[in-house]
Amino acid sequence: MRDVAIIGVGMMKWGELWKKSLRDIFVEAAINAIDDANVDKIDSMYIGCMSGGLFVGQEHLGSMLADYLGQKNIPAARVESACASGGLAVKLAYLEVASGMSNIVLAGGVEKMTDVDGAGATAALATAADQEYEVYNGATFPGLYAMIARAHMDKYKTTREQLAKVAVKNHKNGFNNPNAQFRMNITVDDVVNSVMVASPLRILDCSPITDGAAALIMCDLETAKKISKKAPVRILGVGHATDSIALHSRKDFTTINSTVIAAQKAYKMAGVKPGDVNVAEVHDCFTIAEVVVSEDLGFFDKGEGGCAVAEGRTEIGGQIPINPSGGLKSKGHPVGATGVAQVIEIVEQLRGNAGKRQVENTKIGLTQNMGGSGGSSIVHILKGES
Amino acid sequence: MRDVAIIGVGMMKWGELWKKSLRDIFVEAAINAIDDANVDKIDSMYIGCMSGGLFVGQEHLGSMLADYLGQKNIPAARVESACASGGLAVKLAYLEVASGMSNIVLAGGVEKMTDVDGAGATAALATAADQEYEVYNGATFPGLYAMIARAHMDKYKTTREQLAKVAVKNHKNGFNNPNAQFRMNITVDDVVNSVMVASPLRILDCSPITDGAAALIMCDLETAKKISKKAPVRILGVGHATDSIALHSRKDFTTINSTVIAAQKAYKMAGVKPGDVNVAEVHDCFTIAEVVVSEDLGFFDKGEGGCAVAEGRTEIGGQIPINPSGGLKSKGHPVGATGVAQVIEIVEQLRGNAGKRQVENTKIGLTQNMGGSGGSSIVHILKGES
Repeated sequence: MRDVAIIGVGMMKWGELWKKSLRDIFVEAAINAIDDANVDKIDSMYIGCMSGGLFVGQEHLGSMLADYLGQKNIPAARVESACASGGLAVKLAYLEVASGMSNIVLAGGVEKMTDVDGAGATAALATAADQEYEVYNGATFPGLYAMIARAHMDKYKTTREQLAKVAVKNHKNGFNNPNAQFRMNITVDDVVNSVMVASPLRILDCSPITDGAAALIMCDLETAKKISKKAPVRILGVGHATDSIALHSRKDFTTINSTVIAAQKAYKMAGVKPGDVNVAEVHDCFTIAEVVVSEDLGFFDKGEGGCAVAEGRTEIGGQIPINPSGGLKSKGHPVGATGVAQVIEIVEQLRGNAGKRQVENTKIGLTQNMGGSGGSSIVHILKGES
Repeated sequence: MRDVAIIGVGMMKWGELWKKSLRDIFVEAAINAIDDANVDKIDSMYIGCMSGGLFVGQEHLGSMLADYLGQKNIPAARVESACASGGLAVKLAYLEVASGMSNIVLAGGVEKMTDVDGAGATAALATAADQEYEVYNGATFPGLYAMIARAHMDKYKTTREQLAKVAVKNHKNGFNNPNAQFRMNITVDDVVNSVMVASPLRILDCSPITDGAAALIMCDLETAKKISKKAPVRILGVGHATDSIALHSRKDFTTINSTVIAAQKAYKMAGVKPGDVNVAEVHDCFTIAEVVVSEDLGFFDKGEGGCAVAEGRTEIGGQIPINPSGGLKSKGHPVGATGVAQVIEIVEQLRGNAGKRQVENTKIGLTQNMGGSGGSSIVHILKGES
């Protein structure tokens, strides 16, 4: 398999983009990535999208978006693993380049979530849970993650305030991200006094509903060194694993087993350990999710994630900065695009282009993208090339 | 890239399977394929499904189906290219094995279409067309293919009776397929006097709404020779291409350009010509589709597809037998599963296991799977190994 590098990234300011359609926002992100990569055509593309059908009544997105991007006739595929659809697109683009099947490949993600009302969005997102056993009985994601939070609080004495600290940190980071949906600083008091959604999770523990797209361009490392005007970022490790999508089928609510397995695979392939990672973007769809996966990725011992965030160990400048982009919480969470945007933030960090969010001395970065309540996880490990 | 072989195939009788859920039918097909392959585990899997969201309210199918198959934790991805989703799953499974990323990979497809009513199914299928430009203006697939039929009849003098012959032939073949949804012989008179859907296409020109699943197991050719009790079938060529999903964006309605390009790629990779192909399964979602693609695949000159079927050149025993399985028309068309089932029929033909449908002296077979009105096409070329 060939070494693979990312040579271009593109997105736009995420939010409630009512004046733009799904195809508009995808093309905007893709053109930005193509410009950044200094290429004029792509050979193939993968699009992560969770539910074009339920959100905008449009499937067959691979073909449609290739056409609107002016790349008609190339192989183009839409891929889906709920909220990990973007990470899946990155994985498959990696495979296509690494195998030699194609040379210049775009990995993109897109979701247009605000064209339906709140109930419609909740129902669409709930299709990432087990429809026959969870959703039929009334469970949607805030409730499922609330159960994870309760279990973690019971078992490890994680506190309400520690969860709030995740949101506070991520909004602080997102304040410096021009593409973030919610650029505002919040306090622990704001979080613990915000509207209750599913006890113990309140509205400021939850990532928002977002319209957005993200895209990146990959090629083999040798070509990257020739054509890229910026330092290429190499994909060192890729890990992908699944689990029961129904929470009640798992032995332990306090660990996301798909993340544990995906991380083990990615670390092994990359030849690095958790302690070698300088910066990480993880899937903080709810505050508790960041706490749990920061442990499952091996950054902290099991049960220490709450203390770690409270002690500032995951802030920029801390032991392992997590979600310098603002995470899903502040940057927004257009579900199909999130996994791609996580990789984009790590690329910007490794390039030293992250502005006020820059983590110093970054050589190795990690992304963790997750579907549903952890029914799927995809982990990528990236390294800056000098 | 490694040589890749198919070592196991599985499906079940397709139809209106009201007593079985989507997960039931997928697992049934997958277990049949795993049994046939003589393996006891798989390393990874790809599931083609067009719209789990709109048909059954369930996305995140990769993870869910891996779990229900007893293969929890493996990488599993749902992929979508409208009615070519199954072909896409086969392509990606091929890539994963060929690259060396995984050894034993399942490619499956599934669609449960009868849990919504007819209007719901038509609306769900219409998401494979351009929602903003075609569907908004009232076009659904029978209308779009009717326009293709009108154009082909005008330009090449293709007749109403020639189109009917496609349906008659495919029902004759499907009568001998125990898995086919509609096992009944029909006549040209039956077709031309059946209920009008979108002129000139009548109900017996249209493939049905179907519940069904299909699965196959691939591995590298060397391993296949060691573990398979049946003769492995080698994947010689893979071609994938896209086009505008909106019909009005194309220069010519009488050719499916994505099929032309995908076929050129597959023939080149396989090192074979159209005349070398002994048997083909093609995407006859409407009778006119089979006529058009039989030309676009190079079996006949442009405009001769209608005459060819009328002269019996595509029957079993003819110049190039097309759709010995009964095709989408008789076997049924659970959209995500169709592309996988096409490959299954060719595997059975190359193994010599097709019973009364057997085409004699088959060495090379081809499948052509298509999304929407040809917005995407995937062509596979297979060869029996002795």
